[in-house]
Amino acid sequence: MSFNPKHILGIKNLTADEINFILTTAESFKEINTRQIKKVPTLRGKTVINLFYEASTRTRTSFEIAGKRLSADTINITAASSSVVKGESLEDTARNIEAMRPDIIVMRHSASGACDYLAQRLHCSVINAGDGTHEHPSQALLDAFTIRQHKGHLKGLTVTIAGDVAHSRVVRSNIYCLNKLGAKVRVTGPRTMLPVGIEKLGCEVYYNLDEAITDADCIMMLRIQHERQGKTLIPSLREYSRFFALNEDNLKLAKKDAIVMHPGPVNRGVELSSSVADGPQNVILDQVENGVAIRMALLYLVAGGEKLQVN
Amino acid sequence: MSFNPKHILGIKNLTADEINFILTTAESFKEINTRQIKKVPTLRGKTVINLFYEASTRTRTSFEIAGKRLSADTINITAASSSVVKGESLEDTARNIEAMRPDIIVMRHSASGACDYLAQRLHCSVINAGDGTHEHPSQALLDAFTIRQHKGHLKGLTVTIAGDVAHSRVVRSNIYCLNKLGAKVRVTGPRTMLPVGIEKLGCEVYYNLDEAITDADCIMMLRIQHERQGKTLIPSLREYSRFFALNEDNLKLAKKDAIVMHPGPVNRGVELSSSVADGPQNVILDQVENGVAIRMALLYLVAGGEKLQVN
Amino acid sequence: MSFNPKHILGIKNLTADEINFILTTAESFKEINTRQIKKVPTLRGKTVINLFYEASTRTRTSFEIAGKRLSADTINITAASSSVVKGESLEDTARNIEAMRPDIIVMRHSASGACDYLAQRLHCSVINAGDGTHEHPSQALLDAFTIRQHKGHLKGLTVTIAGDVAHSRVVRSNIYCLNKLGAKVRVTGPRTMLPVGIEKLGCEVYYNLDEAITDADCIMMLRIQHERQGKTLIPSLREYSRFFALNEDNLKLAKKDAIVMHPGPVNRGVELSSSVADGPQNVILDQVENGVAIRMALLYLVAGGEKLQVN
Repeated sequence: MSFNPKHILGIKNLTADEINFILTTAESFKEINTRQIKKVPTLRGKTVINLFYEASTRTRTSFEIAGKRLSADTINITAASSSVVKGESLEDTARNIEAMRPDIIVMRHSASGACDYLAQRLHCSVINAGDGTHEHPSQALLDAFTIRQHKGHLKGLTVTIAGDVAHSRVVRSNIYCLNKLGAKVRVTGPRTMLPVGIEKLGCEVYYNLDEAITDADCIMMLRIQHERQGKTLIPSLREYSRFFALNEDNLKLAKKDAIVMHPGPVNRGVELSSSVADGPQNVILDQVENGVAIRMALLYLVAGGEKLQVN
Repeated sequence: MSFNPKHILGIKNLTADEINFILTTAESFKEINTRQIKKVPTLRGKTVINLFYEASTRTRTSFEIAGKRLSADTINITAASSSVVKGESLEDTARNIEAMRPDIIVMRHSASGACDYLAQRLHCSVINAGDGTHEHPSQALLDAFTIRQHKGHLKGLTVTIAGDVAHSRVVRSNIYCLNKLGAKVRVTGPRTMLPVGIEKLGCEVYYNLDEAITDADCIMMLRIQHERQGKTLIPSLREYSRFFALNEDNLKLAKKDAIVMHPGPVNRGVELSSSVADGPQNVILDQVENGVAIRMALLYLVAGGEKLQVN
Repeated sequence: MSFNPKHILGIKNLTADEINFILTTAESFKEINTRQIKKVPTLRGKTVINLFYEASTRTRTSFEIAGKRLSADTINITAASSSVVKGESLEDTARNIEAMRPDIIVMRHSASGACDYLAQRLHCSVINAGDGTHEHPSQALLDAFTIRQHKGHLKGLTVTIAGDVAHSRVVRSNIYCLNKLGAKVRVTGPRTMLPVGIEKLGCEVYYNLDEAITDADCIMMLRIQHERQGKTLIPSLREYSRFFALNEDNLKLAKKDAIVMHPGPVNRGVELSSSVADGPQNVILDQVENGVAIRMALLYLVAGGEKLQVN
C-alpha cells in the first residue's frame, strides 16, 4: 500500500488502512529518535511553517523537532507576533505565507474548521495541529500508536475517555480513530462537560467514572481546561476531582494491565492523582515520545512519502 | 559588472546599474524557490541575525526563509525579549550582537536613520529591513522586480502611489527606485497624509485619486496604518475609503493592462475593494513571492557575491 | 586529560584541572568563529533545547549560535509561550521535553537550584544558563577565559568584583572559579547589596570601592538590577553611582594594565562611566565574543567530547 495524502486535516476521512499505514511509517521514524545522530536528509530543502494562532509549547516543539530531524527548514509564526494583530483575514495571511513557497503549513487555530478552510484555498500541504474542538489528528494518532505499542493492537479493546469532553481539542479525533481501528469507546464526565449527541460519533456515554472504567484496557484522562472556563466552572475543581479524578483506588476497577494516558499537561490532584500519573500503568511520556515519530511520519507522507530519499 | 556592497541601507545611494544588478541576481534565486529542493549551500557557515525592534511577521519570515534557503544559520531577536527592555542603547545592543560574530544583521527599527547609525559603527554587514518612515529597500526592490516581471522594464512607465504617504515605511524607497529606473512617479492621498515637500523626492503630487491613476501603468496602494494613528485619524476610515479607495470603477481610468500592488497586509474595503484585491490586475502575491528572491539576492551580495560558491 | 561531564551545573564542584580543560577546549572553538565558514559538523543530528524561564537575549542567543555553529538542531522554548502558564510543574515540563529525546537542555530559571533538581531527574544533559542567584557557570568560565586571554594566567592576580553582589546571577560562580584558578578575590558594594557571610565563599569584603580596586589586576563591575528591585532601591541610583561607579579617576587606583569587565548590559553612568565602558582597559566585548566559544566547548564536552567528530 502507498498513501501520500495532500493534507492531514482530521481522522474522520481516513480509512483504517490509511491510519495503520501512518502508524507503521511512524515505527521506522521512532527508531531515528534513539540514534546517536538523530537526523535523516529526507526533507532537506523543504520549508515547513508552524503557524500557531494559539500557544502550544508541546505540539509546536514536537512538530519543530520532527521537521528538523527530517532536515527540513522550520519557521515558527505565532499569532502574537503576526499580522493577525493588523486585522488581516486568515485566508490573506495564509495566501501570503504560501507565496513564500513553503512545502507544508502546520496550523493550530482556535476556530473549528480553520484548517479545512485553508486546505481548500492553498496549493501547499496543510497539517492540522488542532482546530478548536474539531480535530487534532496528530494527537489521536500518537495515542493510537501508544496503545498499539503497549497492547499490540486496538481491535476489541475497551478504551475509556474521561473528563472535560466538551472542551477537549482531541476527543473527536480519538473517537474516530479508535472506532476505525476496532476499539470500543466509552466516554464519561460531568453532564456539563458532555456535549449532547456525542454518542453519535461512536461511543457509549457514562455519567459515572467507576462504571466507565470497569474492565477498561485503556483510560484516557482529559485535561480540565480551567484557564479557559473562567469563573463559571461547573462543577468546581473540588467537586470535579471528587467524582471524576482517577486515583489508585478506582483504577483497580479497570483491567489489571490497563494503561493510563493523558494529553498533558497534567493537573496533578485534579483529574489525575500523582500516584497514578507517576505509577506503573501510566504511559504519558510514551505518548510524548511517540508524538515526534508520528509527526515525522505525517510530514514525510504529505511531502511525497516513498518518493523521498530516506537515509 | 560586479556589485558587492558592504551594507544595504537604502535605495537613495544606489545607481540604476546597481539596482538592475540586484534585480538580475534575484532572478536566478527566484528559480531556486520553485525547486523540489529549495536550498543551495551558498551561505553555509554564515550567521544572519534578524534584529527586529518592531513586529513584522512577513518581512522577518521572508528574510528568515531567504537565509535558510541559502543555508545560513538564522537567529531571530525581537525587541520584546531583548535587552532593550533593560535600557541598553541601540549601539550597545548591536555591538554585543556583533561580538558574537554574525556575518549579517538584518534590522527593523522604528527610528529613521537607525540602520545607517549602526552601519557606521559595526564591522559586519547591515541590511535595512525598514527604519521608521525613512527607507525600506528590500520592499522597494521587490516592487521594482514585480513591475519588471509584468511589464518587462520600468523605463517610461507611469506609477501611481496612493494613500497614507506620510506614515508609509516604503514610499521614499519606492520613489528613489522608480525614478532611477526611469519610471514617472505620481503620488496621491488626503492632504493630511501627504508630507510637505514630497515632490522634491521626484514625483508629481495629486490631490484626487481619479486624476492620479488616469492612464497609469501601475498603481501601488499603501496601507492605512490605522493601528498607528490612534483616535485622531483624519480623514476617518469611512471618508478615506470614499475618496481614496481603489475599486473596480475607478481602476478603469488606469491603462487596461495596469497592475495593482500593495505591500500588505491589505485592509479590504478600506484602501482596496476585495474585487480589486482578488482581481486579475492584482500582483500582490507576486510581490510576496519575489520578496524571498530579492532578500536572497541581498544576503548573497553583501556576503561576498560571486566569490561565494553557488550550487 | 579527558573530561566529559554529564551536566554543567556550576563551578563549585569542578576542579581547577577541569576548568582549565574547558578553557583550553574553548580556545580551539574560538578560532572557528573567525573563519569564513563558521561551522563544524561536530553536533550534527543532536538536539539542543534552550529552555528559558526568564528572558535573556544575550545568553540565549550565545547558546543558540554556539549550537548552530556545531551543527546541532536548536529549539527555543520560553516561559511566556510554554506550558508553565498552564500550571505544570518544572519537573513535568522537563520530563515532557526529555521525552522528545533532546541531547542537551540548556536552562535559565529564576529559582536557585532548579538546574540541579532537573539534572537529578533527567537522563539527558543539563547545562545551567543561570539559576537565580546560585550559579551561572558559562558566564564565570567566559570571564576566566577573558582574563587568561589578557593576562596569560589567573594565578596570583587580584580580581575585584564590585556592585550589587546580592542580586548578581554570576558572582558565586565567579568567586569559585577565580579561587580555583589561584586568583585573589575582593568583593565590594553598598552594605545593603552584600550578602552576609559572602566572605566564606573565598573572598575579602570591602566597603569602599577605592580600597577594593587599589592595585587590582582586574575589575568586574556588576550590573545594578534596578528593574528587579522595584521602588525600594537602597541606596538610590544617584547615591550608588556617587560611591560605587567606576570612572576614569578611581580606575587609576588599579594597576596600570588592569582590565575592566562587565557581564552586560551596562548601565552607562550608573555602575560604569562611558569613558571607562569604551576606554582602552575595557574588555567587555571580548567577554561576549568568548561566550560563544565557551558555550561551544560546554555543548561539545557534555555531548561526548573527543568521541565526537571534529572537522
